[in-house]
Amino acid sequence: MPTAQPSDPLSVIYSQWDQEFAAHPEMSLGLMRWVFEDWQRVTSEPSNVRYRESTEGGVPGIWVLPDDADRSRVLLELHGGGFALGSSNSHRKLAGHLAKKTGVTCFVADFRLAPEHPFPAQIDDAVSVIDALNEQGVATKNIIPVGDSAGASIAISSVLKLREGGRELPEQVVTMSPWLDMENTGETIETNADTDFLITREGLQGNIDRYLCGGADPRDPLVNPLYADFTGFPRLYICASDTESLYADSTRLAAQAEAHGAEVTLSIVHGQQHVFPMQAGNLAAADQAIAEIADWCR
Amino acid sequence: MPTAQPSDPLSVIYSQWDQEFAAHPEMSLGLMRWVFEDWQRVTSEPSNVRYRESTEGGVPGIWVLPDDADRSRVLLELHGGGFALGSSNSHRKLAGHLAKKTGVTCFVADFRLAPEHPFPAQIDDAVSVIDALNEQGVATKNIIPVGDSAGASIAISSVLKLREGGRELPEQVVTMSPWLDMENTGETIETNADTDFLITREGLQGNIDRYLCGGADPRDPLVNPLYADFTGFPRLYICASDTESLYADSTRLAAQAEAHGAEVTLSIVHGQQHVFPMQAGNLAAADQAIAEIADWCR
Repeated sequence: MPTAQPSDPLSVIYSQWDQEFAAHPEMSLGLMRWVFEDWQRVTSEPSNVRYRESTEGGVPGIWVLPDDADRSRVLLELHGGGFALGSSNSHRKLAGHLAKKTGVTCFVADFRLAPEHPFPAQIDDAVSVIDALNEQGVATKNIIPVGDSAGASIAISSVLKLREGGRELPEQVVTMSPWLDMENTGETIETNADTDFLITREGLQGNIDRYLCGGADPRDPLVNPLYADFTGFPRLYICASDTESLYADSTRLAAQAEAHGAEVTLSIVHGQQHVFPMQAGNLAAADQAIAEIADWCR
Repeated sequence: MPTAQPSDPLSVIYSQWDQEFAAHPEMSLGLMRWVFEDWQRVTSEPSNVRYRESTEGGVPGIWVLPDDADRSRVLLELHGGGFALGSSNSHRKLAGHLAKKTGVTCFVADFRLAPEHPFPAQIDDAVSVIDALNEQGVATKNIIPVGDSAGASIAISSVLKLREGGRELPEQVVTMSPWLDMENTGETIETNADTDFLITREGLQGNIDRYLCGGADPRDPLVNPLYADFTGFPRLYICASDTESLYADSTRLAAQAEAHGAEVTLSIVHGQQHVFPMQAGNLAAADQAIAEIADWCR
């Protein structure tokens, strides 16, 4: 249990969630999904952005359309929530800030969730969206997969999947507080337990069990990109806080990708919570992170 | 317990909520608030609408700004949720559909919630927003209070409060599935129990207890507009379904307002759930209700 006092908006809501999880140890997955929708609360409403529901390649989601956005480039937002939680609703405003600052459009994909749909449904859905965008004339090189937490795993693995098929790849992949290790071995889960208000090894294991309930191997490189070959991988951006329980996933990802020659930008802050850019518009550190991601994308 | 099978989106989510409430009888108010945020799920994302966070008269909320909206007329959306639940997040898309169809802007007010803030905080907040809009040059006659469920009570009582102060009144008030009876006596709560998937007398009483925990009288006309004098009241629109548990509040409101000479439009459908216009974009009956409200406002 964290010993620090919650201060930023994410610390406050993660503490509230934690209290409710403790008070309702038998909480259903349905109820947990409603709790995680609350993520949206920490993000301010971005001005001058329109939205449009759509289904792309069979995958429902919403288009995020900032005024004067370059419609030839698309962020593909793959939301966090352990492959089992989260939605276009929880991440709409984050996507709005990212798209607006980057000056492009964004599709927030409501990929299928585990355990109803275990691995690789999420990756298949991300690839299906890319296929659909290709058919609409958006080249893959102009698509930027962006994923936070478990969404980072989907973002990376969808690119690995394209590479398996000998296809054109995106030129850039953005990850925020990536969660990749399906063996659940990261040592910062313990060493940062005092400062991370959300992530516990037990909570992670619940999501691993849901994601891999179809029987996939936790060392399969598409399941766990820490085992992937990053040769020829696009430029990769990683942002995280060194006080997060999942910090070790960021450093291991950077080391693995760089070992295979990929160009990696590792942006590490101090004292922030898991997926801290969610606080866009409400916290300077989040706005700074969004601005740096946008600069890096341009 | 309803005997009908859920079919429309609201029936489905109200049934899911009911299952979770039954499975977690000691559910905290915090958790219940997260459940009610799920209301947003049944509403489609309206296209061509921008949003802007703002605080008006000390009341936070969001502006809903459809393309080409008449900015001299403002819908003041007062969300449902028993005075204790709901938010600009749960009602943003509903407000988007209403504002777009009516061709005006809308402010969705995050008025203070009970029991932390019992009666009359919600009404005071609605009046504060109207004051702030007046200061910005929007005359009260060009403000249309719109409330669903408990929000209808706030919408009506804020107008009664303006009248108490001898102030200019809105020309129109819109209510959807109004909930007004703080004595909890409506007979359709039992007679429609088979067809209403959300509302029970016990659930209502919990919200009454929260709203009136400051000691207000359940027969005070501002607490319970079924006791109000509607002389000189604006044109009043009421929509509801005759299969709702709260149907009796709509018919009693219409009778009371008409008895005092107010012009009432009572639009009653059959077979729909509480606040069925929430399903805008996803159900023909909801789109029809929104279109009729918009026509009536214009």
